[in-house]
Amino acid sequence: MSERVLYDLVASRPEQRFSPYCFRVKLALAHKQLPWRSELVRFTDKDKLGFSGQPLVPVLIDLDGTVVSDSFRILQHLESRYPEQPLLVEADHSLPFLRAWVDRSLTVAAFKLLAPKIHALLQGEDADYFRSSREQRLGQSLEAVANDAPRYAKILHTTLEPLRLLLGQQDCVSGEQPGAGDVLVLATLLWFEGVSGAAMLPADDPISAWRSRQQPWVEQMLQMSEQFQ
Amino acid sequence: MSERVLYDLVASRPEQRFSPYCFRVKLALAHKQLPWRSELVRFTDKDKLGFSGQPLVPVLIDLDGTVVSDSFRILQHLESRYPEQPLLVEADHSLPFLRAWVDRSLTVAAFKLLAPKIHALLQGEDADYFRSSREQRLGQSLEAVANDAPRYAKILHTTLEPLRLLLGQQDCVSGEQPGAGDVLVLATLLWFEGVSGAAMLPADDPISAWRSRQQPWVEQMLQMSEQFQ
Repeated sequence: MSERVLYDLVASRPEQRFSPYCFRVKLALAHKQLPWRSELVRFTDKDKLGFSGQPLVPVLIDLDGTVVSDSFRILQHLESRYPEQPLLVEADHSLPFLRAWVDRSLTVAAFKLLAPKIHALLQGEDADYFRSSREQRLGQSLEAVANDAPRYAKILHTTLEPLRLLLGQQDCVSGEQPGAGDVLVLATLLWFEGVSGAAMLPADDPISAWRSRQQPWVEQMLQMSEQFQ
Repeated sequence: MSERVLYDLVASRPEQRFSPYCFRVKLALAHKQLPWRSELVRFTDKDKLGFSGQPLVPVLIDLDGTVVSDSFRILQHLESRYPEQPLLVEADHSLPFLRAWVDRSLTVAAFKLLAPKIHALLQGEDADYFRSSREQRLGQSLEAVANDAPRYAKILHTTLEPLRLLLGQQDCVSGEQPGAGDVLVLATLLWFEGVSGAAMLPADDPISAWRSRQQPWVEQMLQMSEQFQ
């Protein structure tokens, strides 16, 4: 195999890619200057991923045919295979808490604002699948979640407090240089921005200054993402 | 000076020590087997701390007369002065997020359940000071906060999700061995337990298993804490 393929989640229009877990991989690939071709997967297309032995995006097939699933395992694979421009600068024992916070606090809080908007980007069986699976997870109808948006926006703002404090003290989530911590947080912000069409935070938030500094990285990722479509 | 002195917050009875920031220092001193004498400070006793150039406990006067305030700077001082039995095992760039989360998420969520109970431990001008300063911070009367306890208990449970995931994956907050991450979280749990008279978590919570394993450390700290009263 002579091309690197990333299975990436897509809504009803092919340009609508919004999975935060796929953004993690694309940000890492862009950081390491590793080109790839995207294979688009809709919510109800999971049969496409059968070869990986599990049903979830992202899945990466690397140049030599290695298949890796799970965004974090893909980051670890890329780091060991392509150690130039490292991202896993944290000691192994340090990153797990940040990752747990992104997955269990930040993503969960943001999802309550995004769920109705993700639904609006889907059609047909994808929209039906998303509604039934997510309403069960949320314990509310998508319409009830949308009505509660002001309350969920406050919860998200509060959830971001530790990150706000951290980025008032240091330039990057991972310390002095961008690392895997920056990948995890930035991917979640890109998901939010792409789905909602708005920034997660007001311009005067300390997190927004950090987000702005990442813009060249994001643009490079978007360019590389379109290169092989 | 031939003794090590820690200025520790106290309620109306001298055995009621509950500051989570003082617990951080006492856990670190116990871990490193460094005896100390406690100097008790009530909320309205802040004049006692004037020599440290700031008004907050904990303040440590070390054996050679060095004065250090701020719980985290005290941990760093102890680590550099007494490097045996290290606690700051994390790389410098890794701990800041955990610390920001403890200070801005965990402590804030727990405080809403504890504030009315802390008030009940105080008398006279300490009780008045606590009520007026904390009601302003909370934007609610202590009675209204107490009425909202069931809602705040749910928020605390949700706030703990990342820690629950982490401690399902590794033995200590800091990784394989107890470190500063364990100090920060354990100190907050001791504050909660001491003020509320109950565990923060049900026995079957993954965090409770970790808490139980810290019991010998806690007991050693309590013994050392009473040694020089």
